[in-house]
Amino acid sequence: MVITKTVRIQTRGHTDVRDITPDCRKFVRVSGLKNGVLTVFNPGSTGGISTMEYEPNLIEDLKEALEVFAPSDKAYEHGKTWNDDNGSSHIRSTMMGPSFSVPFVDEELTLGAWQQIIFCDFDTRPRQRELILQAVGE
Amino acid sequence: MVITKTVRIQTRGHTDVRDITPDCRKFVRVSGLKNGVLTVFNPGSTGGISTMEYEPNLIEDLKEALEVFAPSDKAYEHGKTWNDDNGSSHIRSTMMGPSFSVPFVDEELTLGAWQQIIFCDFDTRPRQRELILQAVGE
Amino acid sequence: MVITKTVRIQTRGHTDVRDITPDCRKFVRVSGLKNGVLTVFNPGSTGGISTMEYEPNLIEDLKEALEVFAPSDKAYEHGKTWNDDNGSSHIRSTMMGPSFSVPFVDEELTLGAWQQIIFCDFDTRPRQRELILQAVGE
Repeated sequence: MVITKTVRIQTRGHTDVRDITPDCRKFVRVSGLKNGVLTVFNPGSTGGISTMEYEPNLIEDLKEALEVFAPSDKAYEHGKTWNDDNGSSHIRSTMMGPSFSVPFVDEELTLGAWQQIIFCDFDTRPRQRELILQAVGE
Repeated sequence: MVITKTVRIQTRGHTDVRDITPDCRKFVRVSGLKNGVLTVFNPGSTGGISTMEYEPNLIEDLKEALEVFAPSDKAYEHGKTWNDDNGSSHIRSTMMGPSFSVPFVDEELTLGAWQQIIFCDFDTRPRQRELILQAVGE
Repeated sequence: MVITKTVRIQTRGHTDVRDITPDCRKFVRVSGLKNGVLTVFNPGSTGGISTMEYEPNLIEDLKEALEVFAPSDKAYEHGKTWNDDNGSSHIRSTMMGPSFSVPFVDEELTLGAWQQIIFCDFDTRPRQRELILQAVGE
């Protein structure tokens, strides 16, 4: 069986890192499926999905590491296309990836004890996002 | 049900970034499945799959960002193994990842309006690639 | 059908890169499923899963590239939270990702000839890990 749902999140942008584990956990529990795989997907090109130990200091470390790879104050070629300033947002999204998959067993996600599912909004302004949650299983 | 197909792509290498969305979209529409998850996989160690807003300036930005992380002109240890020059290709592939998953609903991929599925050929020569598309659903 | 299994791995930490392809291949062959998708998941926030050509020189190159992005000797804010030294481990895990998906056809993974599935233990000490393997298919 396949169950799909949309979750709305209001973000602040600028690498706003949000813990979406409760939404994912609840979705699986009410899906009616016992075992399978959950896919979490961001339909957009300036967000990313992954996991981390969700605590404020590590979020700062992640932001700093991303500055090395895709500095937010750099002049990107992309800015010439749309006259905007979110080139770094796109690069971060492509490298982290907009998609994440995790098995669930007996209605529970197989996450570690200190592991949360995060949505990162890399855009340079607040955004209203609609993430896709999909469970495939039985 | 599980439907699998191979798609051939001729690339130029050197971080050739290709939009494979039309292939993916068509595959889902003719799969006979209505809802499920599409997995796109590159069977090789010098390519990557992700999403981006597919436009020429941003492709240049992506290439530049990858140069910071895995410079194409660096002397890699890997070159000693095979006497080749594609160490950076391998590193980029491992970090971007060779696999991508996206839910589809009512025969349509849940991509954003400005989001395309890309295959990046990081190898240092033209390649004939065979990507795997697989839909699992109902 | 959905088949799930746990695989135990003893690692040395410090970006210990392990080839888990034989475990994945065997799991699929004995799963009873012919076609579908294999998800490999690390339930923890300091490990990553991807693919590479598994050879010693390239492993050294990967470690060096990761030092640019997330230096192991940097003073991370995360260290203030738990008084530990594995900030770089967390950043590497979030960016590589803890999850990997690959289609299988006729009981065989669709990996390339020079492509292995790797588990990277980025933690700064030896760890006993339990990876989740899950096949969804028919």
